[in-house]
Amino acid sequence: MELTTLTQENEDGILIVRLNRPENLNAFTVKMGQELEATFRAVNDDDSVRAVIVTGNGRAFCAGMDLATEGENVFGLDNSKRPGLADLEDLDDPELARVRDTGGRVTLTIHDCRKPVIAAINGAAVGIGATMTLPMDARLVSTKGRIGFVFGRLGIVPEAASSWFLPRVVGLPKALDLVYRADILDAQAALDAGLAQSVHEPDDLLDAARELADAWTKGRSPMAVAFARQMLYRNSAQDHPVEAHRIDSLAMFYTSIGDGDDGVRAFLEKRPADFRSKASQMPEFYEEWTERR
Amino acid sequence: MELTTLTQENEDGILIVRLNRPENLNAFTVKMGQELEATFRAVNDDDSVRAVIVTGNGRAFCAGMDLATEGENVFGLDNSKRPGLADLEDLDDPELARVRDTGGRVTLTIHDCRKPVIAAINGAAVGIGATMTLPMDARLVSTKGRIGFVFGRLGIVPEAASSWFLPRVVGLPKALDLVYRADILDAQAALDAGLAQSVHEPDDLLDAARELADAWTKGRSPMAVAFARQMLYRNSAQDHPVEAHRIDSLAMFYTSIGDGDDGVRAFLEKRPADFRSKASQMPEFYEEWTERR
Amino acid sequence: MELTTLTQENEDGILIVRLNRPENLNAFTVKMGQELEATFRAVNDDDSVRAVIVTGNGRAFCAGMDLATEGENVFGLDNSKRPGLADLEDLDDPELARVRDTGGRVTLTIHDCRKPVIAAINGAAVGIGATMTLPMDARLVSTKGRIGFVFGRLGIVPEAASSWFLPRVVGLPKALDLVYRADILDAQAALDAGLAQSVHEPDDLLDAARELADAWTKGRSPMAVAFARQMLYRNSAQDHPVEAHRIDSLAMFYTSIGDGDDGVRAFLEKRPADFRSKASQMPEFYEEWTERR
Repeated sequence: MELTTLTQENEDGILIVRLNRPENLNAFTVKMGQELEATFRAVNDDDSVRAVIVTGNGRAFCAGMDLATEGENVFGLDNSKRPGLADLEDLDDPELARVRDTGGRVTLTIHDCRKPVIAAINGAAVGIGATMTLPMDARLVSTKGRIGFVFGRLGIVPEAASSWFLPRVVGLPKALDLVYRADILDAQAALDAGLAQSVHEPDDLLDAARELADAWTKGRSPMAVAFARQMLYRNSAQDHPVEAHRIDSLAMFYTSIGDGDDGVRAFLEKRPADFRSKASQMPEFYEEWTERR
Repeated sequence: MELTTLTQENEDGILIVRLNRPENLNAFTVKMGQELEATFRAVNDDDSVRAVIVTGNGRAFCAGMDLATEGENVFGLDNSKRPGLADLEDLDDPELARVRDTGGRVTLTIHDCRKPVIAAINGAAVGIGATMTLPMDARLVSTKGRIGFVFGRLGIVPEAASSWFLPRVVGLPKALDLVYRADILDAQAALDAGLAQSVHEPDDLLDAARELADAWTKGRSPMAVAFARQMLYRNSAQDHPVEAHRIDSLAMFYTSIGDGDDGVRAFLEKRPADFRSKASQMPEFYEEWTERR
Repeated sequence: MELTTLTQENEDGILIVRLNRPENLNAFTVKMGQELEATFRAVNDDDSVRAVIVTGNGRAFCAGMDLATEGENVFGLDNSKRPGLADLEDLDDPELARVRDTGGRVTLTIHDCRKPVIAAINGAAVGIGATMTLPMDARLVSTKGRIGFVFGRLGIVPEAASSWFLPRVVGLPKALDLVYRADILDAQAALDAGLAQSVHEPDDLLDAARELADAWTKGRSPMAVAFARQMLYRNSAQDHPVEAHRIDSLAMFYTSIGDGDDGVRAFLEKRPADFRSKASQMPEFYEEWTERR
């Protein structure tokens, strides 16, 4: 896929993804959604990538849906056909594919990512520009960053599965407040709300994100990192800890006979470990688990 | 229904509900529970209401179950019949209706409310007086406010589905501590615990609640607000973000062709939007979704 | 069961459990796991115990899995047999019992405990030494305490159902950060992360834990405390508050005709209540509820 709305560079294992419609404040289009989906799917198969940073080219992160060009295209349904819950039972049915929120396709793909993902919010992150960062594992914000769940001001609803992610990031009471108010928060307010993990001078933002990506992934087992990410998101949402026990028992089995074998020896011998697993080749049960959900 | 335990006034779209048994510190009775249930059900059908504030007349908010008059009435079962889990499969079975906790009937109704709900805690909020505020979207507390989950001191358990709501408000470790201690917290302690969103001088409490209600709902799309509220509570409790994606895809569809149509245009034209949706008339799938849970 | 890896003392209703392999920094062995499981199961049947404190003898709390002696024993499966999700459907199948993570057996047992459990972290709590404290209701940490989810450094994954418990203790963003970094936190960092509830001088640690255990359980109804603990952990993980309503309706019924009967009278008469319930004898529905999960 030729990329027209974003750029990618692999810097020593960190994939820097830059939203790249600077003349439009990186406003989100259906094409950008498709390119983000493709990017995050490819990351799972690319063993040269150990972490992803998403940022924006120019002065914005992403100023929301491109209302000028995309408004009418988001839903292509004949309006006389009003979809209901049953229509979205089979999410892959092409007939109703366009009822599926484009932002949600992106955030579900990020949710499935086997590598840590960091948002480096360099400017305005509004609407889908805000909600696309919620399935990322941290939001680092420039002093020029702004975050706004502004849907309420337009008479529409927060999308991109943000009603699942936002309460996990800031807690339910703050999530209600942010969504009802629909205000645009500056960096300090985003930090106070628990939305941003840290605030940085504009020139330091990307370095801070790289540093975090290294602290999280450099010299680590790709399989163990992939498991840890998926376990924390998925297992914590189950209705009983025994579901986590089922998965971590298997994950511990496979990592113990895999990277953990040298990992433990290296620890005892006080030397760096020789991790050889590949996140592109997870044990068979991983597919079954993550497909089943 | 003639109201004997509370009063209601619609002030410019904000329904002010006052618990009104001041001579009994607004102690909760089965009658008060029925009137609260009826009130919150009616709010969903009353398009002149955009937000609800609950407060207490006199010096208390609600001093808990009226033990003097209600203790023996709460459960009307023949004690020789000991109910089990199966008995509560069909919650609407009138035979066992009285096993259902009265407070829970109220909080489940508030959970279903299509308008934001704010607790203005003017004095003691103890027992059911405390737990009834947990499904509300914010708790504003007067410096004379007190909040206590005191059940443990009486040898009984926290009710009104508070074991579901309280950890969502303050997190699980603090919820355990509050319930085990069963202490009565002053306003500052409630704020520190994350239970209160803000503390106010007694004379400013109701104005602060009105201001918050306005910031959340004034000039907003009733349908978008109703969706946002239900999505945050319901979707965040699902075991996978795809469930949020199903719902927000549909909610975005319906709000896009509804209030979002003028909402987006008004935004681009920098004028106030003309929102005409009614929360009393949600799309068909809303009923199916919220009934199914 | 003769205890070789830990000691127990019942001090006025508080069971002090001391991990007791001080020469090995209380490193965790399969035997220690079995003894912890047996201990927590016995606590449910022992009405002389109202709370549990877990601490370490010597300078460590628990320095993690005893890699020297246990590494190869943790999984006894023939490696040619690679287990999948289906293998862990029946967790009690002895054939595959050894695929089950030993730490998870312990934390699931603590999760089922009918008495509050407090971790008094006197020194290093690393790996399983850290994750075993997550299903406990508070973590009190000495200024010499250290907590580390170090799995990532060994090429393995966080276990003991910690992917379920940790986000409930510190929130999902912090959980991701702690697990990815795999650092060892000092007491202040653990407090800042929300992992520790309080920090104490080494000599004051156990007294602080005793004081908390008393504040939570002294003079309280054993049945009401057991219900409150299980309700907060279990009901908050359900996908709708009506599940909490089902359980607390029944729990309120049984405690109302039990300890609540004198509890309410004693409150009105301003005298201490005479609570006679036993956590070893919960109502029949409790077993059905907790077995079903």
